Amino acid sequence: MSLCPPGYGRFVQAETFTARYTGAEANVGVSLVHFGIEACAVSKVPEHEMGQACINYLRRFGVNTEHVVRGGDRLGLLYLETGASQRPSKVIYDRAHSSFAEARPDDFNWPAILKGKDWFHFSGTAPALGANIVAILHEALEAARALGVTVSCDCNYRSKLWSHDEASHTLGALFDLVDVFVGGREDAEKLFGIRGTEQEAAQGLRERFGFRCVAMTLREGVSASVNRLGGLLCDASGVYSSRSYEMQIVDRVGGGDAFTAGLIYGLLSDFGSQRTVDFAAAAACLKHSIPGDFNLASREEIEQLLAGDQSGRVQR
Amino acid sequence: MSLCPPGYGRFVQAETFTARYTGAEANVGVSLVHFGIEACAVSKVPEHEMGQACINYLRRFGVNTEHVVRGGDRLGLLYLETGASQRPSKVIYDRAHSSFAEARPDDFNWPAILKGKDWFHFSGTAPALGANIVAILHEALEAARALGVTVSCDCNYRSKLWSHDEASHTLGALFDLVDVFVGGREDAEKLFGIRGTEQEAAQGLRERFGFRCVAMTLREGVSASVNRLGGLLCDASGVYSSRSYEMQIVDRVGGGDAFTAGLIYGLLSDFGSQRTVDFAAAAACLKHSIPGDFNLASREEIEQLLAGDQSGRVQR
Amino acid sequence: MSLCPPGYGRFVQAETFTARYTGAEANVGVSLVHFGIEACAVSKVPEHEMGQACINYLRRFGVNTEHVVRGGDRLGLLYLETGASQRPSKVIYDRAHSSFAEARPDDFNWPAILKGKDWFHFSGTAPALGANIVAILHEALEAARALGVTVSCDCNYRSKLWSHDEASHTLGALFDLVDVFVGGREDAEKLFGIRGTEQEAAQGLRERFGFRCVAMTLREGVSASVNRLGGLLCDASGVYSSRSYEMQIVDRVGGGDAFTAGLIYGLLSDFGSQRTVDFAAAAACLKHSIPGDFNLASREEIEQLLAGDQSGRVQR
Amino acid sequence: MSLCPPGYGRFVQAETFTARYTGAEANVGVSLVHFGIEACAVSKVPEHEMGQACINYLRRFGVNTEHVVRGGDRLGLLYLETGASQRPSKVIYDRAHSSFAEARPDDFNWPAILKGKDWFHFSGTAPALGANIVAILHEALEAARALGVTVSCDCNYRSKLWSHDEASHTLGALFDLVDVFVGGREDAEKLFGIRGTEQEAAQGLRERFGFRCVAMTLREGVSASVNRLGGLLCDASGVYSSRSYEMQIVDRVGGGDAFTAGLIYGLLSDFGSQRTVDFAAAAACLKHSIPGDFNLASREEIEQLLAGDQSGRVQR
Amino acid sequence: MSLCPPGYGRFVQAETFTARYTGAEANVGVSLVHFGIEACAVSKVPEHEMGQACINYLRRFGVNTEHVVRGGDRLGLLYLETGASQRPSKVIYDRAHSSFAEARPDDFNWPAILKGKDWFHFSGTAPALGANIVAILHEALEAARALGVTVSCDCNYRSKLWSHDEASHTLGALFDLVDVFVGGREDAEKLFGIRGTEQEAAQGLRERFGFRCVAMTLREGVSASVNRLGGLLCDASGVYSSRSYEMQIVDRVGGGDAFTAGLIYGLLSDFGSQRTVDFAAAAACLKHSIPGDFNLASREEIEQLLAGDQSGRVQR
Amino acid sequence: MSLCPPGYGRFVQAETFTARYTGAEANVGVSLVHFGIEACAVSKVPEHEMGQACINYLRRFGVNTEHVVRGGDRLGLLYLETGASQRPSKVIYDRAHSSFAEARPDDFNWPAILKGKDWFHFSGTAPALGANIVAILHEALEAARALGVTVSCDCNYRSKLWSHDEASHTLGALFDLVDVFVGGREDAEKLFGIRGTEQEAAQGLRERFGFRCVAMTLREGVSASVNRLGGLLCDASGVYSSRSYEMQIVDRVGGGDAFTAGLIYGLLSDFGSQRTVDFAAAAACLKHSIPGDFNLASREEIEQLLAGDQSGRVQR
Repeated sequence: MSLCPPGYGRFVQAETFTARYTGAEANVGVSLVHFGIEACAVSKVPEHEMGQACINYLRRFGVNTEHVVRGGDRLGLLYLETGASQRPSKVIYDRAHSSFAEARPDDFNWPAILKGKDWFHFSGTAPALGANIVAILHEALEAARALGVTVSCDCNYRSKLWSHDEASHTLGALFDLVDVFVGGREDAEKLFGIRGTEQEAAQGLRERFGFRCVAMTLREGVSASVNRLGGLLCDASGVYSSRSYEMQIVDRVGGGDAFTAGLIYGLLSDFGSQRTVDFAAAAACLKHSIPGDFNLASREEIEQLLAGDQSGRVQR
Repeated sequence: MSLCPPGYGRFVQAETFTARYTGAEANVGVSLVHFGIEACAVSKVPEHEMGQACINYLRRFGVNTEHVVRGGDRLGLLYLETGASQRPSKVIYDRAHSSFAEARPDDFNWPAILKGKDWFHFSGTAPALGANIVAILHEALEAARALGVTVSCDCNYRSKLWSHDEASHTLGALFDLVDVFVGGREDAEKLFGIRGTEQEAAQGLRERFGFRCVAMTLREGVSASVNRLGGLLCDASGVYSSRSYEMQIVDRVGGGDAFTAGLIYGLLSDFGSQRTVDFAAAAACLKHSIPGDFNLASREEIEQLLAGDQSGRVQR
Repeated sequence: MSLCPPGYGRFVQAETFTARYTGAEANVGVSLVHFGIEACAVSKVPEHEMGQACINYLRRFGVNTEHVVRGGDRLGLLYLETGASQRPSKVIYDRAHSSFAEARPDDFNWPAILKGKDWFHFSGTAPALGANIVAILHEALEAARALGVTVSCDCNYRSKLWSHDEASHTLGALFDLVDVFVGGREDAEKLFGIRGTEQEAAQGLRERFGFRCVAMTLREGVSASVNRLGGLLCDASGVYSSRSYEMQIVDRVGGGDAFTAGLIYGLLSDFGSQRTVDFAAAAACLKHSIPGDFNLASREEIEQLLAGDQSGRVQR
Repeated sequence: MSLCPPGYGRFVQAETFTARYTGAEANVGVSLVHFGIEACAVSKVPEHEMGQACINYLRRFGVNTEHVVRGGDRLGLLYLETGASQRPSKVIYDRAHSSFAEARPDDFNWPAILKGKDWFHFSGTAPALGANIVAILHEALEAARALGVTVSCDCNYRSKLWSHDEASHTLGALFDLVDVFVGGREDAEKLFGIRGTEQEAAQGLRERFGFRCVAMTLREGVSASVNRLGGLLCDASGVYSSRSYEMQIVDRVGGGDAFTAGLIYGLLSDFGSQRTVDFAAAAACLKHSIPGDFNLASREEIEQLLAGDQSGRVQR
Repeated sequence: MSLCPPGYGRFVQAETFTARYTGAEANVGVSLVHFGIEACAVSKVPEHEMGQACINYLRRFGVNTEHVVRGGDRLGLLYLETGASQRPSKVIYDRAHSSFAEARPDDFNWPAILKGKDWFHFSGTAPALGANIVAILHEALEAARALGVTVSCDCNYRSKLWSHDEASHTLGALFDLVDVFVGGREDAEKLFGIRGTEQEAAQGLRERFGFRCVAMTLREGVSASVNRLGGLLCDASGVYSSRSYEMQIVDRVGGGDAFTAGLIYGLLSDFGSQRTVDFAAAAACLKHSIPGDFNLASREEIEQLLAGDQSGRVQR
Repeated sequence: MSLCPPGYGRFVQAETFTARYTGAEANVGVSLVHFGIEACAVSKVPEHEMGQACINYLRRFGVNTEHVVRGGDRLGLLYLETGASQRPSKVIYDRAHSSFAEARPDDFNWPAILKGKDWFHFSGTAPALGANIVAILHEALEAARALGVTVSCDCNYRSKLWSHDEASHTLGALFDLVDVFVGGREDAEKLFGIRGTEQEAAQGLRERFGFRCVAMTLREGVSASVNRLGGLLCDASGVYSSRSYEMQIVDRVGGGDAFTAGLIYGLLSDFGSQRTVDFAAAAACLKHSIPGDFNLASREEIEQLLAGDQSGRVQR
């Protein structure tokens, strides 16, 4: 659960908080549902009503929650203050000891969960929770490999969660079983010592870890209110980049997840590399205009932006 | 009634909707009231409390509602989602079978309604409702002509309401009795086959239909959050255009109606062509900074902007 | 108390008002508290619960309220409408006859209040209230001089409160006892007949009145939504100016007070002239991203902006 | 304007206030409009937008505002905290120096205002504002008498506004020109020394001052949340009392004004004494179920309650 | 979709409306989901986003929406004003021409929909929509009979939707295929001419139409804020009634549907007649304490009330 | 921090939560501040902004926070759903691993904290957090005894926090150093095996543990919306009980703390036993009419209730 002060209010000004029951993987799942892909969440939440509220939130936006296990002590929290202009957004994590952070490998029967599925996605914020989650992920990735399920990982390195060394070591050990990697130039350099431009970083990551494909958003922060954003994709056939969008930001959170969902959708749909990165970038762009973490944009809306209409003209 | 999700929320996120009891003609009327002109609404709403709420809303902002007839089955609806950045605003119409859509000619005694009035304005969205409304309009326009009341029409073509052909045919048949026309380059081309620049479109429309004057906003959509807007007016003495304003948009809806109200006010006040289009464009500009459909700006505020102050400096 | 319609709503649209219990001096005080400086408010509010609400508001944000006297008839009011784009913000004052406006010199024992303090700050909006407040200020300034307390004054000329002549005469008579003055080019010219650039105005004011230091914000209003802002400081060692920030404005009110607080903090901390004006300008910049009058930014956040990070990148 | 903390919140808890632009006479007027009677407000509000907001509020609910004069310095205020259970509601007045409090007799041309009208109503809270208002009222009452307009007065004694003696003296001097008086047992005793039961008080008042009719609500406060309420009317034909209603209170304010409006309506409609007091009491009862000061109940709804249906059964 | 003014506000006071995407059958379904029973909605909503919002709302609370057909013109509406004390709640229907009201028999493949299901429930408000819905229901009921699916019908007679005669005729023609009927004393008398006490009405209905079981709530309206409620069940073994609860009403809507859901749950779970009616009445009681149409109470919470704890003691 | 769904909404319905930074001891402290007693909070909250928000909340309502230590990982949470009618309020605790739950004895220098103080109060919910808190309390109580500071303890047994045995053992070991005990009949029986009426329980507790005084609220829950509440006090001079109030509950939380604060105030003020319990019960009664945990009632308001006025008559 994310708890956000209303509007651009600071933590110390808030008398109410808006609750969002989200997370990097859930955000990707909801996007995919809006493209017509079935998505299942795999997680663990408490038995009590706040756990149920979390399930209801995902269910509302179409995610299948039958593999969300119930149990444990608490719902993981994150306080999120929305920045503006020169003031950055700020996150305070309160995830330790959550039901998911203390999940055990036997909570999840991966061969059963992944049977008949096409794709498994996880975020680098999950293994940051501890060795038990890393062990769970290893089981998941092995089951995926055995069943021919494609695996994607979004690096999502967060300095408030772990050090560069911890992340590098833990994530690196999972990469043998990862097909598609989403991570940026800074991740490449600080976690894996791969220096250079975005293109070079993508190529370097791909070569180092043997990923089928590496992708990333190219984001330029004019301020917390205005960003420019495009995408880059590197696969065996070369490096592809999308156009860049200058965005007036409504909600920046979930932008990367929307990109990842667009990427997965393009790859699942055999869009080809150029169209895939274009679609992913346009999806990420639209996300920034929608409050909340979820990219509630349809494929048609993204296609419309891809077709060049950025005028925001009223549809009536 | 327009029902709008709060803020930039999407339809599927809304738990509450803000209600606005508006419409193109009502918006023009409220603007005129704020310039000191008496304005009467002519419409039909149900007997029940939701119809009364509609009347109260207009009354609150000073529109005379004595000619709003009560009866019929339902209040016409419109769902409005506010866009931002690259995401356009979206309208879902639910106007069919409304009290007004099913009004009959004998609901309105036009000679009595128009007696002593100076101006009659209608929007092209009204005749899109059906033949009964077209018949009502014909009666109104004939009464207006007989009483020497100036008639203006804002094209307001909406592709979700009718086809280009229907609109062209229906509106065209009314134009003999229209003095002042507001419509854009795209309307000129798609409805009436008049191609060319905005200036050429205005001149072409004026010549084709014998309007006393044709006016239009010149809008450039940088995004749903930023637009540039100016105005153009074409009459017997030539073509006049205003300066262009770059606007951070608070609420885009009603911008055209604010322009039309400024135009009518300028024409009624014998401002002269250049000052009329300048006033209309400045009025439209200010509207975009005000939430809701209504341009709640006074003549003084518009004059101040016309005088060149765009700095937004606090008035204290 | 400021009463503000929600969002960008106009006065005539509001059904609710947000209450802020603020004021120029209180705003400076809250900023200083957030930099780790103890700040005391000296004022007078009614005995009743609305007076208590005012005290609680300051107390919440850390201001010491032990010198706020209770009594008198009413709480001073100010209605504040937030502008956007080309529409300016608007203030309606309702301060006459307030407890503070009718305070008497014997309400405040300045030698006791100022004992052990380092700094006394007042805004030019206070003496605009009447001769009794001017008399109170004279007592305060004399006590400050006697105790070696530095005195700063922010001109804050408001044309709705008094004429240029009244302000010039009244403020001028206090300047002998003022060490640090905050006021702009327009104030210099219209109140004191000092013409020229901002630099020349600052130097002219400093020379004319013998201030230790004169400072001002340099604000360029692109619109009510976008401003550019920097700062300038003039003291015995020369004239110093900061970089300029282009800001997407969340709340413009209190920007000048945040600058003044940054200035006082820099001077109290012996930052040196350049770093002082840089700090003050960065403080003012961040204020514009925070709703309400108060600059709830910490010293660390301001330093981070000073260090060059304007990207608004999420801190997580 | 009344400013109310949301819900049952106390003044010191409020961050927002709900604004109601009401008053005893306005409340009576709105009720009468809902019974189909035209009602005009006569008052004075500032030129600025908050004065306009006040006019719009009345206009919204159908009151004719053409006789509301513009000018003066400020809008009168009243802070209102809503009580519950054993905690009473609380009012803080801030009416002094308002536009109306400082109105002058030449602001109102009573013969023109009252021409063609049937009834003039005023509340005892108005003359509490000062000698100028008393003078204005004398002019109004004399014009009313001259034009054959019936005059009613609701005592509305408020101990926070004036003493018993002041009220007794000032109101008593107006009673020669008052036809219908609304006031309670406590008023009779404390202002006019008339002791006894409610019936005796009504009879005593009627005899002493020669009123055509005296009426009052009979209210028993179980708590701030539950009240019992009935009505009593005393005229030349005797004393009549209504049944008593046990009410779960949504909003207690305006209950007496709703009674007065029902009384005026009954007298204007020649309901007869019994039906008049029954109607007035049922109107007052329904008011307590409606948020705000205004009794937005129709004649039909009151008749339905009079007919005996208190079950609150959903109408569908 | 129900549109409700906030709190106890009247229609003409509302600036925002709370949206609930509910309906008698949906309400029953959500209750059953909270008892651990899978429930599927069968309906038709528009393709557009407001139709999707409706689906999301049901999905959030666990109802399976795979049989909700998409298409048609509009979402059915209902405006709902919440009553209090002596003021009844009020409903304004705007259901005509909705997607569901204009559904066609071939929109639903009943044998496929009902296959493997245990129970089919419909409300009497559905056939009131028109002959097409009656035809759809006939098909559904025949399929149910063929597949051995139990059928229940809640009379839900609404005088604003159809006359007693229409309802009697249309519903009566469906009763051959109905096993369990929910309807009150007044329905029995006014629709079917069966007079007498509640017990006699239930027995009379059961005998007349050969229902397996007839049940009803016994509601006594002290006011819109306080009701007393119990239940009665009549089957082959006799007539059973529950205890009666005195309720402070938070939201009265959906109370009957909660009773019906409790009844279905008891019958499905072979609770026996007495425990079934007790459970249904306790379920209905708890519903009145929950805002919205849905009874979001768990089986455990209902059991706790059945066990006698009405004290409302905090669970901590 | 307590997180509460708005109004009577259930956890699964909430999209926003109201935040209260409260706790049993803080609630007592705020009450005492409103009676004119200085109160200091002793606790530990995180360094981050949510910890600061907690401090600001207490500071706003006048509690001295200089002894609130900063550090640790997280802010303790509690989810609170407000019940109504037959539905009880519900609490979900998420306090484990909070900054306070993991505080260490050396975080608090009790002799310094308690120097010059008159009273130390703690709630039985604190030692339920773990052995470290018990150790901290022992140090506090010993310091209090050494300095002659009176010690009170409110049992506040919560079955969701610990078992009867744990509570009995841990609390019992502290009782030697406790002077005033607040606890009910059920606590006496279930924790300490003392059976009998409330009077007997109070006397039994007092004798068993040698308390100077034992007090308790006598609460009868008609429903979650209506309670009856009085108080009982047992000291060396006998057993005293107050009158009982029937309350329409606005917010039940903090009722016991308001009683305890009234008790402490009465004992500190030498009210005598009867007046002390009367004052404490009236304070608790008023609390139930105020939203939030804090009893924001003044001594004057409580005296007014004590004087017999329960009518809730508007104060104006």
